[in-house]
Amino acid sequence: MSDKVKIIKPQPISGFPEYLPEIRRVEQLWQDTARRVFERYGFCSIETPSVEAVEVLAAKGVVDKEIYVLSRLQADEDEKTEGRLALHFDQTVPLARYVAQHFNGLAFPFKRYQMQRVWRGDRPQDGRFREFYQYDVDVIAVDNLPLHFDAEMAQVSYELLAELKIAGVRLHISNRKILQGFMAGIGVADAAPIVRIMDKLDKIGAKGVQETLQKSGLVNDSQIEKCLTLAEIQAADAGEFQQKISVLKIDNEILSEGISELSFVMDYLKDLPSGAVLADMSIARGLDYYTGTVYEGRLINDPGFGSVIAGGRYDDLASSYINKNLPGVGISLGMTRLFSKLLKDGKLPALAPSPTQVLVALPNEEMRAAAQAIAQQLRARGINTEVYHAPQKFDRQLTYANKKQIPFVWFPDSGQVKNMATGEQVAADAASWQAY
Amino acid sequence: MSDKVKIIKPQPISGFPEYLPEIRRVEQLWQDTARRVFERYGFCSIETPSVEAVEVLAAKGVVDKEIYVLSRLQADEDEKTEGRLALHFDQTVPLARYVAQHFNGLAFPFKRYQMQRVWRGDRPQDGRFREFYQYDVDVIAVDNLPLHFDAEMAQVSYELLAELKIAGVRLHISNRKILQGFMAGIGVADAAPIVRIMDKLDKIGAKGVQETLQKSGLVNDSQIEKCLTLAEIQAADAGEFQQKISVLKIDNEILSEGISELSFVMDYLKDLPSGAVLADMSIARGLDYYTGTVYEGRLINDPGFGSVIAGGRYDDLASSYINKNLPGVGISLGMTRLFSKLLKDGKLPALAPSPTQVLVALPNEEMRAAAQAIAQQLRARGINTEVYHAPQKFDRQLTYANKKQIPFVWFPDSGQVKNMATGEQVAADAASWQAY
Repeated sequence: MSDKVKIIKPQPISGFPEYLPEIRRVEQLWQDTARRVFERYGFCSIETPSVEAVEVLAAKGVVDKEIYVLSRLQADEDEKTEGRLALHFDQTVPLARYVAQHFNGLAFPFKRYQMQRVWRGDRPQDGRFREFYQYDVDVIAVDNLPLHFDAEMAQVSYELLAELKIAGVRLHISNRKILQGFMAGIGVADAAPIVRIMDKLDKIGAKGVQETLQKSGLVNDSQIEKCLTLAEIQAADAGEFQQKISVLKIDNEILSEGISELSFVMDYLKDLPSGAVLADMSIARGLDYYTGTVYEGRLINDPGFGSVIAGGRYDDLASSYINKNLPGVGISLGMTRLFSKLLKDGKLPALAPSPTQVLVALPNEEMRAAAQAIAQQLRARGINTEVYHAPQKFDRQLTYANKKQIPFVWFPDSGQVKNMATGEQVAADAASWQAY
Repeated sequence: MSDKVKIIKPQPISGFPEYLPEIRRVEQLWQDTARRVFERYGFCSIETPSVEAVEVLAAKGVVDKEIYVLSRLQADEDEKTEGRLALHFDQTVPLARYVAQHFNGLAFPFKRYQMQRVWRGDRPQDGRFREFYQYDVDVIAVDNLPLHFDAEMAQVSYELLAELKIAGVRLHISNRKILQGFMAGIGVADAAPIVRIMDKLDKIGAKGVQETLQKSGLVNDSQIEKCLTLAEIQAADAGEFQQKISVLKIDNEILSEGISELSFVMDYLKDLPSGAVLADMSIARGLDYYTGTVYEGRLINDPGFGSVIAGGRYDDLASSYINKNLPGVGISLGMTRLFSKLLKDGKLPALAPSPTQVLVALPNEEMRAAAQAIAQQLRARGINTEVYHAPQKFDRQLTYANKKQIPFVWFPDSGQVKNMATGEQVAADAASWQAY
């Protein structure tokens, strides 16, 4: 043991999550499940570099985001010949850049998923994640993208949550054209500031929205009343939605288009279990960016937690990078946020800290070769196997198996295998034995 | 199409690889295969944050590495209250920090694999990868780590390459104690500078090593001759190795220990195909760090390419972070480097750019619901399925299937499915149809 070296006791870094092996295995399960669901719908995987040129990140006017810029610890003069690089803060800007850069190598509609880490340069004091996984699914078309894909996004999102056995997340859906047309219909010229206030309905409540709108001086009392009536419309299906929104009696072409689109999406999703999706007129999500369907996934029992899924349709993915009309629709699942919440609430499945299925015990050093031979036979048959590392007392070897939650222990001296859950011990042959 | 926005044509960033979907799928295949092989031996997955505190990275005296330091684009005063963060440049320092930090939550021997991106802040002009995947496998014990694990590392490495069908990589193995004992045995007091020169044998040849040693003035001609004789010893198995090294007739206890350890490892690996591993006395690898077995994987047909696998045994993983004696042994596979080389040489398997197995054609808009129903039936049975997005001519739909290399096209109007490879078209039922 070296005691010459000064010991630096490592501390967790705020906002950069790290898990023990048993939790990491649940994270792997999530990633595997997401991949399976996304590929079932024909989405292909891409990965982009962790960095983009700062000018690329800034092209969409997102310089106000907190981004991490890289600098070489030993930078020198030639550094200045290259533009600055920064860690990406989402997977949408990288997707836009990717599609523009590789346009001729891709088949459209381009269906891709992307499950990478993203970074937000928040202040450590703020306690937010500064590094986290997002699972993004998008489809990008040239010129025209059928509305069916808007429904498919909700379907994929629902199936992923169902396969992960995550209850308690509901996908709220609206359509930007409804808000836009509605505002025009009630005589509001500049919808953006009004919508930003209405978007806070789930956080500050109807009274809060009403007061904020009054203070803004942008709308009169009659308009405020109409806005609140609209924002409070929620419907479980297309029929209920159309009935509720028709009561407003506002005539506007864009509004009608939005109603028709949202009705289509809700109708398409009619076979999902009740409560999985909800038409919700209070959902706005980044007025400047989305142009049609918008999604927001929220925890049913903890609406104040904020969104765990976000997305929508955009007319124009990559116009900053290429002279093509590329409409798209996509969702982004904030998996680290959701994972961390379920972990904290004790709602993740309990997995063993090790993938090992069989521990071959080591009775004495002379039997090492026999133990290894059994292990190799089991491995060749796809069974994850370890040989215990030293000829210690069996009690100690069983304690190790228990600590790692290894389900079976093989005794090469007696030729028996012990089921650690039941205690049952039977004769076994490595050439034919089945773990389950 | 927006033409108000200035178009910034995206450029690849030197050293940050990015692949088209068909290449990314091969990368996924590599990751899946590595995970399967590692887990078969009982290694568990961990991931660590992309960053470490600069003081943690610097604790092992590695400040001369080119590291990327992060800074927030909108940093403010409170920034100074937190230490600087930098992207990790390998997975060994993070492993040491992880083991020290989570010591009480882990079972030892701790077998872990880690497949993450790492970063090196090289100058862009140097054309090296600045972001790349490494696959690391290590086992860490408390106090004692049996030598069998040194052999297991080579076994795991061989199996991974075999399952990836990568021929042409050979694992060269030596033991640091051989060089150390040998140098003492021939009367060289400070072995380090001599070993650094000998380590260049594969790059500058025997003559180059001889001349460099002569110029150094650290060793006399007789010592140089002995060094070269040692460095040129290569052996395919334990017997050949012992025979060749006994010729040197140098008596030193540490040398004998190294010979015995390497013989043990080579003997353990005797069932591997001939040429998979090679005892090679020219392998030194970081004299200051490794203390026993050392590994280096090289391309048989391109030795000048350098190592694609590197690793060895270390007595003392984490003494900078915890007051425990934690010996370990591990290998690191430079997967992006190897992947990129095989890609360039046209030696990667050709995969389709999409995971889609069936494209359901769309004869007309009226049949959309029927097409979707077939797709949902196939998906429920685990078959990756897309519905063509628009009711275009079948020729165009088949062109899309060909471009994405989708193996089957389903025609919902005729109830037939076409095998795109054979052209065969047969009646099919989505409830029972098998893709292969």
